[in-house]
Amino acid sequence: MSLKIDLNADVGESFGRYRLGLDSQLIPLISSANIACGFHAGDPGVMRATVRLAVDSHVAVGAHPGLPDLVGFGRRTMDLSLDEIRDLVTYQVGALQAFAVDRGTRLQHVKPHGALYNMAVADPRIWGIVMQAMARLDPSLILMALAGRGQSELAAMSRRHGVRVAYEFFGDRAYHADGSLVSRKLPGSVIEDHGHVADRVARMATEGRVTCIDGSEMIITAHTICVHGDNPSALALVKAIRKRLGGSGVKIAPLGSFLGDPPDTRTGDDGGR
Amino acid sequence: MSLKIDLNADVGESFGRYRLGLDSQLIPLISSANIACGFHAGDPGVMRATVRLAVDSHVAVGAHPGLPDLVGFGRRTMDLSLDEIRDLVTYQVGALQAFAVDRGTRLQHVKPHGALYNMAVADPRIWGIVMQAMARLDPSLILMALAGRGQSELAAMSRRHGVRVAYEFFGDRAYHADGSLVSRKLPGSVIEDHGHVADRVARMATEGRVTCIDGSEMIITAHTICVHGDNPSALALVKAIRKRLGGSGVKIAPLGSFLGDPPDTRTGDDGGR
Amino acid sequence: MSLKIDLNADVGESFGRYRLGLDSQLIPLISSANIACGFHAGDPGVMRATVRLAVDSHVAVGAHPGLPDLVGFGRRTMDLSLDEIRDLVTYQVGALQAFAVDRGTRLQHVKPHGALYNMAVADPRIWGIVMQAMARLDPSLILMALAGRGQSELAAMSRRHGVRVAYEFFGDRAYHADGSLVSRKLPGSVIEDHGHVADRVARMATEGRVTCIDGSEMIITAHTICVHGDNPSALALVKAIRKRLGGSGVKIAPLGSFLGDPPDTRTGDDGGR
Amino acid sequence: MSLKIDLNADVGESFGRYRLGLDSQLIPLISSANIACGFHAGDPGVMRATVRLAVDSHVAVGAHPGLPDLVGFGRRTMDLSLDEIRDLVTYQVGALQAFAVDRGTRLQHVKPHGALYNMAVADPRIWGIVMQAMARLDPSLILMALAGRGQSELAAMSRRHGVRVAYEFFGDRAYHADGSLVSRKLPGSVIEDHGHVADRVARMATEGRVTCIDGSEMIITAHTICVHGDNPSALALVKAIRKRLGGSGVKIAPLGSFLGDPPDTRTGDDGGR
Repeated sequence: MSLKIDLNADVGESFGRYRLGLDSQLIPLISSANIACGFHAGDPGVMRATVRLAVDSHVAVGAHPGLPDLVGFGRRTMDLSLDEIRDLVTYQVGALQAFAVDRGTRLQHVKPHGALYNMAVADPRIWGIVMQAMARLDPSLILMALAGRGQSELAAMSRRHGVRVAYEFFGDRAYHADGSLVSRKLPGSVIEDHGHVADRVARMATEGRVTCIDGSEMIITAHTICVHGDNPSALALVKAIRKRLGGSGVKIAPLGSFLGDPPDTRTGDDGGR
Repeated sequence: MSLKIDLNADVGESFGRYRLGLDSQLIPLISSANIACGFHAGDPGVMRATVRLAVDSHVAVGAHPGLPDLVGFGRRTMDLSLDEIRDLVTYQVGALQAFAVDRGTRLQHVKPHGALYNMAVADPRIWGIVMQAMARLDPSLILMALAGRGQSELAAMSRRHGVRVAYEFFGDRAYHADGSLVSRKLPGSVIEDHGHVADRVARMATEGRVTCIDGSEMIITAHTICVHGDNPSALALVKAIRKRLGGSGVKIAPLGSFLGDPPDTRTGDDGGR
Repeated sequence: MSLKIDLNADVGESFGRYRLGLDSQLIPLISSANIACGFHAGDPGVMRATVRLAVDSHVAVGAHPGLPDLVGFGRRTMDLSLDEIRDLVTYQVGALQAFAVDRGTRLQHVKPHGALYNMAVADPRIWGIVMQAMARLDPSLILMALAGRGQSELAAMSRRHGVRVAYEFFGDRAYHADGSLVSRKLPGSVIEDHGHVADRVARMATEGRVTCIDGSEMIITAHTICVHGDNPSALALVKAIRKRLGGSGVKIAPLGSFLGDPPDTRTGDDGGR
Repeated sequence: MSLKIDLNADVGESFGRYRLGLDSQLIPLISSANIACGFHAGDPGVMRATVRLAVDSHVAVGAHPGLPDLVGFGRRTMDLSLDEIRDLVTYQVGALQAFAVDRGTRLQHVKPHGALYNMAVADPRIWGIVMQAMARLDPSLILMALAGRGQSELAAMSRRHGVRVAYEFFGDRAYHADGSLVSRKLPGSVIEDHGHVADRVARMATEGRVTCIDGSEMIITAHTICVHGDNPSALALVKAIRKRLGGSGVKIAPLGSFLGDPPDTRTGDDGGR
């Protein structure tokens, strides 16, 4: 594990006249911005403004593609084919890539949003099709995916598609001993205490360990921490995490600065269409 | 004028379960495909399939961005700010660019759709903001714009933004002596006879001249001819045009193959934001 | 069983410039029109025109509400809450009711579309929430639901909510002995032969029996037959069904003309919110 | 002029996860609620909740139909045909009517939103087509339209269509001597001082007079005052208006309670389609 770690957050989720999130305060506190691409949130004007804000704050920009469900904010599972998922990822990543290029930068990463992320956790073929879309579009793009359960399967896919994966840790969520997240419907699934969350994050970053909900210890490798900026309390938590990491000698940096080169796929092939 | 000319057509305008146009028959007959980008028509799956069809037919691909008005098919004028237009062009061109890259090619051109095209004809500042978006995204992109009235103003903009413009001729539309199109609401505005249309196209391509609705002769420079594939009769017209051009020694070729390099903007400025 | 039967079909599924279905030929052949309401297909102009066409053909009009998924034509399952389903049904039924009133009529029935129908077959609580929405909006509305498996549960719900249910038979689909439809993914699930389909429909209408895929006989009570108008062959099938029914002495009539009064709910309760 | 007056406000403009406006605080302060219908803002769940909030506060409910432009919040003029406008009004009014009926009430009024309202002020044929849609749907519906310039033409339309019109006064906007509103782009167009606004409203309500931007006096007849609930300051203004009206002996009441019966159209006809 590196003594560098990334902090990522979902931003650019305003739409038209509607404002959501404290982006201008949150973005300077993170190292990688997951920017909504217009399907679950965001619109072209919001995307431009958010890329600008991130670039001005020296924060890496990434695409946060979602399901085509604005009224549901991309949080409602939809029964899409793998081809449909590949195409909507290509579309949204391309749209955001244009705003990045317009601002003189390139996308660093892709993180599926909401139900699409959860659908991929439940069906890893979705991670695979997202990697395939990324590999064909820009092989330097990094996929953010859930650390823990299923990580070795993801690592194999990553090599096959030649796409780097950054594993993501949720400091404020309880884990089962098998590396899966405890459902939000269960008691104890969300850790409220800021100091406790900061402790977990720092321990994961320095020791690669987390205490599971059953009290057992789990070894975990993660490159990025998911944080939020919905309200002032969420911002306070980000600040607490930053402070604790700093005190532990862990540097906050964008993924692209420490993740290494993309895997070599000269011997593999995901199959041309 | 070159003895090469481009034939362009709007394609990829199906959506979801809805089919529109005879793309698979039309695309092999043209040299540049204007592909809808999801706002007025098209969806990610249609975009992928249409890019593939064009690439397989050795036809150049371009973006055909429209207004955010699916039910109106992008044909209803909307009172958008220049910033809003720039952003929706950037978004849509980026989205299609991704499908082009995915298929191993790049976009050749951009042609605004429907009301957006007409809005630009009425207010050339819109051509300017579209050029600005294109210049920042990919300076090799070629803008398709209406030949005739206002062409010198467009040429000046083109040099200022460093974006090439290909001027478009409508063989089946009557022109006023000032180079503007005769409104579709007026009698005689649309020329129905296929032979007559093919004659006009061939004469424009070889002599650079067209006979206006008042009988006067107009000098016109155009690089591309707009054709349609809505129905079998439209396809027959495209074939008639191709045959007549061939008989006149005019070669049909994509814009990028004969339009020359982008203008030098070392002394100009597209206006930093 | 009545010797009257209803023929229903999904119509009004055009959208904007996109045309779908042979509505003007199909509508005169049916007795109840399920009109799309703008979420999966249809738009306000299409809805007005379709109501007019139905009224002019003396065909009863009904709402065909779908999931908010235009690109997927309402055919992709979405994980919606019961409250979300109730609200999108209320919205869409209300919108179509306005066009009916505008044309001097009222809605006869409601038939959920595509994935929403299938979701209700899989989870009868969805039938219940649709009935609840209907009961509060207009207790004279009739729900169309799948005949066969689960019919007694539906009948109980129907009494509880005070909403009439018309059971629907698919003449061109094979049935399992438990009354469920054979999945379209399985061989033999769709019956292609027009004569065979017409025979099945006539036998169901006159004897209340159908032969299942395993060769067993099933007793089935249905009030309406689902037909299609996608293409000339589908229209020919409708004509074949009409002819066979006529020859068997079965009269084709809208549901409202023979289904009887709504159930009495004085002793029941649809659950006040 | 009555010594009763109505206070109306636009509400229900949240959408999906996005919140807008202080509805729960504003609604108890007004007498008529203009509820968004899903095209420019609002969704089925928001519509249900807003109708409920209004009914629980004994506030009359009305439809606030807008252009199909969610990202532009219905504020961007669109070039729609009169038929398109009629149909989108019918659709949206019907959808909201369903939620009203579901809650045991009926719609009192219709107020076009944003650009649609402004388009009607600029082209009174739009008021006419809205009245036509309302008359066919429910002749008891009241149209809210701008008081001042053009009011006599509207009154004639009102009699012709048999639809009542309530004229609306903007207490915080300056008027020209011809009864038109001073454009927001001009200095002095918006009156900021709460006391001054309250004075203008009370004088209009009691004397039927307002001082124009050029200092002249204008006679004006209005039945409803437009107020806002965007922020705490806007709410404070509503409270100031209520207090001043109360001190002047003017009672705040919904339009339907004092506007009289619909006009008699036995001698007129808007022409059947």
